[in-house]
Amino acid sequence: MKTLNIDLGHHQYPIHIGGGILSDASLLAPHIHGRQVFIVSNEIVAPLYLDRLLETLGDGYQIATYILPDGEQTKSLTQAEAVFTEMLSFPFDRSATVIALGGGVVGDLTGFCAACYQRGVNFIQIPTTLLSQVDSSVGGKTGVNHALGKNMIGAFYQPQVVIIDSDTLSTLDDRQFSAGMAEVIKYALLGDIDFLVWLEDNIESVMARDQEAIAFIIERSCQSKADIVIEDEKEKGVRALLNLGHTFGHAIENAKGYGVWLHGEAVGLGMLMAADVSQKMGQLSELDVARVRAILLAAKLPVSAVEGVSSEQLRRLMSVDKKVLDGQLRLVLYTALGQADIVPDAPEEMIMQTLDDYTV
Amino acid sequence: MKTLNIDLGHHQYPIHIGGGILSDASLLAPHIHGRQVFIVSNEIVAPLYLDRLLETLGDGYQIATYILPDGEQTKSLTQAEAVFTEMLSFPFDRSATVIALGGGVVGDLTGFCAACYQRGVNFIQIPTTLLSQVDSSVGGKTGVNHALGKNMIGAFYQPQVVIIDSDTLSTLDDRQFSAGMAEVIKYALLGDIDFLVWLEDNIESVMARDQEAIAFIIERSCQSKADIVIEDEKEKGVRALLNLGHTFGHAIENAKGYGVWLHGEAVGLGMLMAADVSQKMGQLSELDVARVRAILLAAKLPVSAVEGVSSEQLRRLMSVDKKVLDGQLRLVLYTALGQADIVPDAPEEMIMQTLDDYTV
Repeated sequence: MKTLNIDLGHHQYPIHIGGGILSDASLLAPHIHGRQVFIVSNEIVAPLYLDRLLETLGDGYQIATYILPDGEQTKSLTQAEAVFTEMLSFPFDRSATVIALGGGVVGDLTGFCAACYQRGVNFIQIPTTLLSQVDSSVGGKTGVNHALGKNMIGAFYQPQVVIIDSDTLSTLDDRQFSAGMAEVIKYALLGDIDFLVWLEDNIESVMARDQEAIAFIIERSCQSKADIVIEDEKEKGVRALLNLGHTFGHAIENAKGYGVWLHGEAVGLGMLMAADVSQKMGQLSELDVARVRAILLAAKLPVSAVEGVSSEQLRRLMSVDKKVLDGQLRLVLYTALGQADIVPDAPEEMIMQTLDDYTV
Repeated sequence: MKTLNIDLGHHQYPIHIGGGILSDASLLAPHIHGRQVFIVSNEIVAPLYLDRLLETLGDGYQIATYILPDGEQTKSLTQAEAVFTEMLSFPFDRSATVIALGGGVVGDLTGFCAACYQRGVNFIQIPTTLLSQVDSSVGGKTGVNHALGKNMIGAFYQPQVVIIDSDTLSTLDDRQFSAGMAEVIKYALLGDIDFLVWLEDNIESVMARDQEAIAFIIERSCQSKADIVIEDEKEKGVRALLNLGHTFGHAIENAKGYGVWLHGEAVGLGMLMAADVSQKMGQLSELDVARVRAILLAAKLPVSAVEGVSSEQLRRLMSVDKKVLDGQLRLVLYTALGQADIVPDAPEEMIMQTLDDYTV
C-alpha cells in the first residue's frame, strides 16, 4: 500500500492506494468520528462492494445506505434533495460520517451533500472507477450539474480520507476504464512528458489491466493531482490546468445530453481539440498532435467528430465555463507537448475552426 | 458610521453600520472585484431600495437583478435552483459579485447560492430588516430549509462586506421589527446582563424606533455576534449559544408551516420555553423567568402557548436540530439570567412538560 498526504494547511488527509484495502478496517475507523454512518453508492457498485464495506465497518455503527441510479443524470440538485430527505428521515446529525462508494458521479454528488448537510458533515471517499481514483476523488471538488452547465453548482469540500482499492477496477467495464484513462493521459499531457513517454511504451499492459501497470498509473496520477491541489486548492491559478480538455468536453457532454458521452470520453476528445487549436496557434507541431491522437486511440477513446451537434451550440455552451472571467473565455491549451497553460486570448476564429472540424 | 472588523484568519471583512450608508459608493466599490453584479432582493424590499442601490453602483458594471417572493417559503432548494438558472442564463462567471438586498430570507438563500455557484463567487450582504442586521447577515451562515427541518441545507460562507443602513428600518412593519427584537434580546439573555438591564430601561424608546436607541442595539448586537463568530466560526463550541431559543423555535416554525410564525417570533417564544426548562432544572428563579417574559412582551412578541400543534410533534421536530450529536439532544439553556450554556442532558420529562405547557 502507498499513502499520499494532502496538506492544505487548514485540513490534512491521507490517500491510501493498494489492492484489497477496502477490507482494511484500520484505514477507515480512525476517520469516523461519531456513531452514525451513511453510505451512498449506486446500482452498479453496491451489489459488488457494499457488503464488503459493511463487513469492514463491523457492528459498532448505526448505518444507513442509499443507492443512486447509475449515470451522469444522477448528478442533479433534485437527486441531492432526495439524499437530504433520506438523511433527515433517519435522522442523521452533525456528527454523522458520509461515505461515497462508487465512481465520479457518486463521489461528486455525495460530497456535495456532505458539504451542505447541516452546513457540513464528515466525508470519506472510496472511489471504485479508474476516473474517480485518479481524478475526482482527490482534491475536494464536489457538485452537481445544472441543465445549463456541468458542475455549475458545488462546493470545495475535502474528505477525511480517500481509500483507493485498485482491485475494484477488475469489475470495471472497458468503456468506463477507457474513460478513466482520459484523465490519466491528461496528467501526462499537461505537465509530465516522461509519463507520456512511459504511457506510449506501456499502453498495452495498461489496457490489459496489468496490476503493476495499473498501480503505477494510479499513484503517478494521484501524485500529480495532489501536488497541484496543495499548491492551489481553490483554483485561483495552476489548478485550472487540470481542466485541460474540459471546456470542450463539458460542452460536448451537455450538448449530447448528460450520460450519452461519458465524461472521460468527452475530455479525451476535448484534449485533442485543444491540441488542434494549439497547433493552429503554432504551439504544437503536426507530430505532437498525432501523438495526442495516437495515445487517445490506444486507450480506445473517441477521436472523431461529434455527431448531431453544431459548432455554434458547443461554442455557446463553452461560454458558461467556470474559467470564463468577465465574459472572456480562458482555454487551457498546450505550450508544448507535455506542457499546458491558461490562454485568455486564443483567436476566436481558430476556436470556431476547430469546433467546425470536430462536429458533423 | 461605525465599522466592526471580522477577522477569521482565512478571511477578513468589515461590517459598516450607519444611517444612509446605502448611498455611499465608497463602501461598496472596493468589494466588487469583477464587472458582473447580480442583485437578489424580494418583492417588498426591491420597490423601496433597489433603485437607490443601482444609483450607488453607477454605470460601471453589467448588472442583473432577481426579485424573490416574500416569505420563509422562499428559502428552498427549488428557489435556489431558479436563482442558479438565472445566473447561468446571464451568464455570470466566477468573477461575479452577488449582492443580497433584503432580510434574513433573502440573505440566507442568496448567500447559499453565492457559495455554491461555480463553487463560490463574491458575496455582499445589505440587510434591510432588524433581524438580518443584528443576526443573519453577520457570521457567514447561509442556507435553505428542507420540508423536514429548517436551515438543514447550507454552507458557511463569508461575505466581502456587510452594509447595514439603519435608515432602512423606517419602512419595516411592526411585526417584522418585533421579530428582529427577539434576536436583540437573545444577545442580552445569553451573555450580556448589562444589555438586558439597558433594554428593560429603554424598551419604549427602542419600540418607538428612536434613532439613537436603534443605532445602539444594532452595534451592541453585531459586536456580540462578531465576538462569538471570531472565536468559533464553524460552531464547534461557543457559537452554539447563539441558538438560544432556536431548537424550540425551529420546531414551532416547521410545525406551523414556514411563514406562519416569523422566525423571530418563534425564537422569542423558544427563549421563554428554554427559561421554563431552566427553571424546572433549578437554574433560573421565578423572577428570572418573569423578566424574560416581560422583555419579550414589551417587544410585542408572542408569549402564549402555540395553537394547533402537539408537544409530541414539536419534540419529534426538535430531534433533527443541528446541535443533536449521536442522537442526543443538546439544548441551549440558561445557567443564570444573562448566561447560557449547552446542556446535553436536560431531563426528557422536563422538556416534555414545557412542551405540554406551551402547546394547546
